[in-house]
Amino acid sequence: MKPTDSNIFFPRSSKVYVTGSRPDIRVPFREIELAHTLNKDGSQKNFNAPIRVYDTSGPWADCAQCTLPMLREEWIAEREHATQLELARGGTITPEMEYIAIRESVEPEFVRDEIAAGRAVIPVNRCHPECEPMIIGRKFRTKINANIGNSALGSSIEEEVEKMRWAILWGADTVMDLSTGKQIHETREAILRHCPTPIGTVPLYQALQKVGGDIDALNWDVYKETLIEQAEQGVDYFTIHAGVLKEHIPLANSRLMGIVSRGGSILAQWMQNEGEENFLTTHFEEICEILKKYDITFSLGDGLRPGCLADANDAAQFGELKTLGELTQIAWKHGCQVMIEGPGHVPMHKIKENMDKQLADCFEAPFYTLGPLVTDLAAGYDHMNSAIGGALIGWYGCSMLCYVTPKEHLGLPDKDDVREGVVAHKIAAHAADLAKGIPNAQERDNAISLARFEFRWEDQFNLCFDPERALRFREQSMPPGEEFKTEQRYCSMCGETFCSMRINHDIRENAE
Amino acid sequence: MKPTDSNIFFPRSSKVYVTGSRPDIRVPFREIELAHTLNKDGSQKNFNAPIRVYDTSGPWADCAQCTLPMLREEWIAEREHATQLELARGGTITPEMEYIAIRESVEPEFVRDEIAAGRAVIPVNRCHPECEPMIIGRKFRTKINANIGNSALGSSIEEEVEKMRWAILWGADTVMDLSTGKQIHETREAILRHCPTPIGTVPLYQALQKVGGDIDALNWDVYKETLIEQAEQGVDYFTIHAGVLKEHIPLANSRLMGIVSRGGSILAQWMQNEGEENFLTTHFEEICEILKKYDITFSLGDGLRPGCLADANDAAQFGELKTLGELTQIAWKHGCQVMIEGPGHVPMHKIKENMDKQLADCFEAPFYTLGPLVTDLAAGYDHMNSAIGGALIGWYGCSMLCYVTPKEHLGLPDKDDVREGVVAHKIAAHAADLAKGIPNAQERDNAISLARFEFRWEDQFNLCFDPERALRFREQSMPPGEEFKTEQRYCSMCGETFCSMRINHDIRENAE
Repeated sequence: MKPTDSNIFFPRSSKVYVTGSRPDIRVPFREIELAHTLNKDGSQKNFNAPIRVYDTSGPWADCAQCTLPMLREEWIAEREHATQLELARGGTITPEMEYIAIRESVEPEFVRDEIAAGRAVIPVNRCHPECEPMIIGRKFRTKINANIGNSALGSSIEEEVEKMRWAILWGADTVMDLSTGKQIHETREAILRHCPTPIGTVPLYQALQKVGGDIDALNWDVYKETLIEQAEQGVDYFTIHAGVLKEHIPLANSRLMGIVSRGGSILAQWMQNEGEENFLTTHFEEICEILKKYDITFSLGDGLRPGCLADANDAAQFGELKTLGELTQIAWKHGCQVMIEGPGHVPMHKIKENMDKQLADCFEAPFYTLGPLVTDLAAGYDHMNSAIGGALIGWYGCSMLCYVTPKEHLGLPDKDDVREGVVAHKIAAHAADLAKGIPNAQERDNAISLARFEFRWEDQFNLCFDPERALRFREQSMPPGEEFKTEQRYCSMCGETFCSMRINHDIRENAE
Repeated sequence: MKPTDSNIFFPRSSKVYVTGSRPDIRVPFREIELAHTLNKDGSQKNFNAPIRVYDTSGPWADCAQCTLPMLREEWIAEREHATQLELARGGTITPEMEYIAIRESVEPEFVRDEIAAGRAVIPVNRCHPECEPMIIGRKFRTKINANIGNSALGSSIEEEVEKMRWAILWGADTVMDLSTGKQIHETREAILRHCPTPIGTVPLYQALQKVGGDIDALNWDVYKETLIEQAEQGVDYFTIHAGVLKEHIPLANSRLMGIVSRGGSILAQWMQNEGEENFLTTHFEEICEILKKYDITFSLGDGLRPGCLADANDAAQFGELKTLGELTQIAWKHGCQVMIEGPGHVPMHKIKENMDKQLADCFEAPFYTLGPLVTDLAAGYDHMNSAIGGALIGWYGCSMLCYVTPKEHLGLPDKDDVREGVVAHKIAAHAADLAKGIPNAQERDNAISLARFEFRWEDQFNLCFDPERALRFREQSMPPGEEFKTEQRYCSMCGETFCSMRINHDIRENAE
């Protein structure tokens, strides 16, 4: 992606900023300019106000430099070492909270209250000042995360930075760097320094790499060293599988698919071989102290998430969830922010139980799920599969959906897969926002519908989640010699005689 | 598509037939052969029984000829002129019902009872003896329909026959020929004579074509002539927009998008211009007599379905639904089978009301919906958008989902779009079947999950909805020089060290 890609992929969009109570609170939006509604004679009938949408793409949309501004540097310097949770509990509205209030069109006090109650998190590390503040909580816009990262079998630092930029261009709210291959530290550094959204990681992966992939050589010291190394780099949230206990292993062994989480399976093997309890659990309070120092958010990992429908909502999964709730309270006691990771593969009728149990067992800490996938049969189409379950659980109260790409179960996603995966989950998250009644969520839908009714083709494309693809598909479907014209009052689906929109205009004109 | 495409796209699948109480009841299934589970030394540990799946593709999967067998010729000749509904009410289990019972793994008496109650339909015209019997009803497998057909702006007879074959290869249960362009009669004839699934049409389109596209020239005589012409050809179900009444037009005029159904808008304009009631409503009993003669199923059209979220569940939509319920009772009185068409664009939280109202107002006649799409913003991705709403309404009790392709709102779909659209809705329909508890729906999911756990890669691909795409994606994602090998115990997503499946095997071996 080049810095000008936003112009290519989002025509007639521009970045605008809304300033808060101090000049350095400048909240970005993407503003989509609309055409006028015209009379039949071509004169202007109505002015259509531009539509502002939440924008995750950062300064890349505007500028050609490669250095991100240190947006939060002063805010961090101004205050004592304290987490957003501690500050919120003490009644402080931080600049991050005000920034988020503008971004989400809510009152700053509402943001503070949700943070103080643990129902939402602001995952921004003190060492990641480039990060634009954002919030994850079920009373706010449903967020989506895009996983990137290399594996032993492929990708380079440049490719991964490019995937990150590409993911946030299409609307990813956070990005997880799940690299398990070469140059893990350097890849993460490059991603963090170029990323305006929160970055999450699973520190266990690098810890295992440090001991040469030998699970038996894992220990608290190497893990702690890795945590601090990543904390200093600026990672904003850590997936920590501290809920997988020795007592859960027999439950998982009787499953159809066992443990499908990488972190979960690594820790299970370590516990089995060492005969000891999970070292992340036994050292949990020390982990809290490290995360507190940087205000890194816990993303308590679901090491026992079901990997197939047959294992959904079983004793292993719900046993771990209960433990995650206990750990949440310990982390909160330390002043740390917490979210909870969730499944996985779950048939539709079992999704609500997941959400309800998570809210009850984890005291309303935000839920962050992978899908759920609603069937096991959709390899090659798992982004759609995940969008179905994701839309449902978002409606029920999930705060962030981890995207799934068309390559899920098959291999490492490439750039096209990232775009498909992000847009599929934008659809799911937006559908959830509409269903759970996020204020003004339907404004953009209404604008595109009016554009559709009025044959404002360019507006129809520009208001879409993916304008470039919509325009390209329209062009492809026109017969040779009848290339797309913006003034056409029909499309190749129906042709002019059968165009219901055209007929409606005739009906309304007659009625007048 | 060539007749051998099933071998290319579904490797290790073969067509098998289960014979019923008479030798000419031969019900097709696709049987997917599985590999053995192996021990570490390569010896056989377990035999994995092949999986049989519902198959819509017809004899094309097997044979190289272009003539379909006249499967139902004798069954039709043997009986009096009577509809499946009348026969079911009289206690007769027709060969079609027995065929369906085998196809759906239920008792023939259960099929008869659902038909007699009007809760399900068997849409097979006496003049379409090539059609393999199938059932549409909420206590059976959720079905999907694929729309094909030319428009004034494109496509040929050959292309449309090809799209039909392609759609049923991927799993379309019925196909609607919505041609509005040239050679409507000839296109339909070619499709019908080559199609082993029910074919639906909207006869109004051809009637309008017969009068040169002049809505004011439409009348009962030309419509009746068209109905009979299409009935004689063998069309299995007709969309008839007899529920759009004069009184509904003002309700639709106050909408954001008015009337988006082609049939609905044509009839509204006719009523407005003529000042008369919808001629399909005033002649409804005559239509019943024609449809009864051929045992053509009514698909009562939702001419007032919402075309955007803002218009969902409004007075126009629910006013028409009430009328459709009244028409259902008239059609049933005549012995005709009926299903009801539904929306459209509906946000998730308003979907259940659609299903509940349809069941109540239309006396449990099967519901057949287009989507619903859960946002207006997804042009280019509307197949995913529709799969979200479709999965939900299928779970709630919808019997058939009309597919939506990536070209929705943009243009006429091509072959690739048909494949994407069909598979997206297969996922939605299967998710619905799992959620509503269709017996054995999870068997194939469990088989693929076991194959995934045991690194039986070929079985993983072959059990998918789209094996060719899954294999292709896997191959694409392997680095050069590390091409796919079926014995690999990892993929490029995680590599070998981080493969949770590989670790699980190690854990289980240690535990033993």
